[in-house]
Amino acid sequence: MPAINPQRLLNDLKQLRTFGAHGNGVVRLALSPIDIESRRWLVGRLTEAGLEARIDGIGTVFGRSRGKGRALLIGSHTDTQPTGGWLDGAMGVIYGLEIARAFRESPETRDLAVDVASWIDEEGTFAGFIGSRSFCGEPVSEVVARARNREGQPMSDALRAAGIAGHPLAQMEPSRYVAYLEPHIEQGGRLEAAGKRIGVVTSIVGIRELRIAFRGQQNHAGTTPMEVRRDAGAALIRFASAMDGAFRALAGPQTVWNIGRVEFSPGSASVVPGAAEMVLQVRDPEAARLDALEAKVTALADAANAAGPVGVSVAPFDDPVAPTVMHDDMQNHIARAAERHVPGAWMRMASAAGHDAQVVAARLPCGMLFVPSIAGISHDFAEDTSEDDIVLGCQVAATAAASILQNA
Amino acid sequence: MPAINPQRLLNDLKQLRTFGAHGNGVVRLALSPIDIESRRWLVGRLTEAGLEARIDGIGTVFGRSRGKGRALLIGSHTDTQPTGGWLDGAMGVIYGLEIARAFRESPETRDLAVDVASWIDEEGTFAGFIGSRSFCGEPVSEVVARARNREGQPMSDALRAAGIAGHPLAQMEPSRYVAYLEPHIEQGGRLEAAGKRIGVVTSIVGIRELRIAFRGQQNHAGTTPMEVRRDAGAALIRFASAMDGAFRALAGPQTVWNIGRVEFSPGSASVVPGAAEMVLQVRDPEAARLDALEAKVTALADAANAAGPVGVSVAPFDDPVAPTVMHDDMQNHIARAAERHVPGAWMRMASAAGHDAQVVAARLPCGMLFVPSIAGISHDFAEDTSEDDIVLGCQVAATAAASILQNA
Repeated sequence: MPAINPQRLLNDLKQLRTFGAHGNGVVRLALSPIDIESRRWLVGRLTEAGLEARIDGIGTVFGRSRGKGRALLIGSHTDTQPTGGWLDGAMGVIYGLEIARAFRESPETRDLAVDVASWIDEEGTFAGFIGSRSFCGEPVSEVVARARNREGQPMSDALRAAGIAGHPLAQMEPSRYVAYLEPHIEQGGRLEAAGKRIGVVTSIVGIRELRIAFRGQQNHAGTTPMEVRRDAGAALIRFASAMDGAFRALAGPQTVWNIGRVEFSPGSASVVPGAAEMVLQVRDPEAARLDALEAKVTALADAANAAGPVGVSVAPFDDPVAPTVMHDDMQNHIARAAERHVPGAWMRMASAAGHDAQVVAARLPCGMLFVPSIAGISHDFAEDTSEDDIVLGCQVAATAAASILQNA
Repeated sequence: MPAINPQRLLNDLKQLRTFGAHGNGVVRLALSPIDIESRRWLVGRLTEAGLEARIDGIGTVFGRSRGKGRALLIGSHTDTQPTGGWLDGAMGVIYGLEIARAFRESPETRDLAVDVASWIDEEGTFAGFIGSRSFCGEPVSEVVARARNREGQPMSDALRAAGIAGHPLAQMEPSRYVAYLEPHIEQGGRLEAAGKRIGVVTSIVGIRELRIAFRGQQNHAGTTPMEVRRDAGAALIRFASAMDGAFRALAGPQTVWNIGRVEFSPGSASVVPGAAEMVLQVRDPEAARLDALEAKVTALADAANAAGPVGVSVAPFDDPVAPTVMHDDMQNHIARAAERHVPGAWMRMASAAGHDAQVVAARLPCGMLFVPSIAGISHDFAEDTSEDDIVLGCQVAATAAASILQNA
């Protein structure tokens, strides 16, 4: 069993935080100058760990092991949200670095191959998951050519400014890899609530996003009697209320849904809304349940259209994301490692957030390991995990990594 | 009984429409160049009718009768909404002009005094009701100094450009007036639905506007389980739904309410709203009912705060407008005139829209007379009333005006 070095792990995590630090949090948007600086630092650390490391042509940091035999790929992302936490993504990458170092220090694992990746732009500053998508063989040149950040900067300009435009792209060699392992913070509060310290991810939830639009008749809010109104806003509220009740009846233990955006038009206090819309997002580990929830929305819209007087239409707001199942063998390796280090203090759970593993899963067996997020907070400067949990997660990941490679 | 001249009335209404005509509708914002042009035309018409007419220092056109004894003031407004109808306000002013002319042509009414006003900016391009407010003695100089239109033009610049800055203000002489009469289109569909041709206004509804704000906890819409969320948006929908049910139980025959504006913050599909707010407007002819409805909102908020987990606060969004009762005598004069010309085809009703009469009512007995709006449409280019109804309304107003003055 390879032993990780807790102090070295924490030191490197804290060193990485200095690139873009804002209090306990980090602002390190993909391909920003500070992000590029952190990538150069990471290439240095991976090189010191004995890997052949480089930044590829779209910004992914890739460290290739000189070890023998097939490799385990460990990775995540070091770019952040606009006001991000210090561990989201970063922790999994530094785990990969530390595991590579720990492997080199232990006779049983010295020859095992661990590659390490920090995929560019998981958070979608320019194009979400673009690093892992490119690595998995998706032709991304057109996406890259079109992509801009919120300030309107073209991704191609950012790549040129970073001095990496034209660098070769890191590419999957399918015969090289046993599997992909992505350790990550949970980003939610289930582990904490259950008193567990390790989550063995069973799947990454699928996502459906629907735009539900209501078309009525704009009118004077004083002179139009209630009984003749075709109030699109009131129809939206009735619909959302009915949908909430219906969803509670259909929900599974891990179903979540959100109405994150609502708009009434024209938006004046004294005008009956002639149009209204909302954006609904639904997540669940099971495609069948997502289908049932989406069918319920359609049925409610059909019923509302039949009843009148306000028309309802339902359309996709964004491309659906299919649920991604983590590989059974990977789950079992992680579960055994967790049981060994903290007997009984781990649980299986779905990931309710998206991860690069859902991209890589199309090409390789994937596994994910979670550590608890304090108070379930993420995508926020306040995001944190106890140092004990950070260290434990890395040790469990290292033990799992060794058993994955030793049983390959 | 003074006989109005239908063709002359319709000709002048159509002539007034040519100032800012857009199809059947009109764009004649207060103090715009075309509005000023129309005011100069109106001064000419009033002068031809024998009145001493002028534009005052904030834009009100005021025509003072040379007749003997106390006067009846007839008026409304000739400014329009940004995309306004041709009759909203304009009709009442031209009724005043026509009634002044008709009175002069009939021996029994020749000596009666009818003053005519077109109050500036009833529609609030710069400051709503500012003409009637100034006339009634409100010191408006500070309001005028601060007021700007949507384009940011100061009202003082518009007055200078019109060449009327510094003109004396028309001012109420309380001893001069018997009453104020404001004929107007209904702007709603009650008369049409009831098959009536004249509305005798009993009161102008009061208005309460409340901002209802919800404060929860912004969070990740994937990783935050439903049961631990403090979703401000979901709380708003529950609140609005409960409020709708409660209001239906409390509503009177003329109660209307509207949620015209809703906002979820931060407004992202994948973020649980941490804050949400809505603007509620309630109108009713009775202050006691408005009190009861507002108390219900407060009670619902108290209950929601007690239940948690999202905080609710209720605050005024705009100054309340008290209901304004039309004077009994005025109602009776109008009702008798309506019964004389169209027996049984009139009804008493509240005005659900605001009018200058609610300002003048603080100083003079007021009466309002409505004619039907086709399909209840107003504040829209499509606003219209049949010519028969326009003519009938003017004749009823003239007959009522004569009886008001003859019984003063």
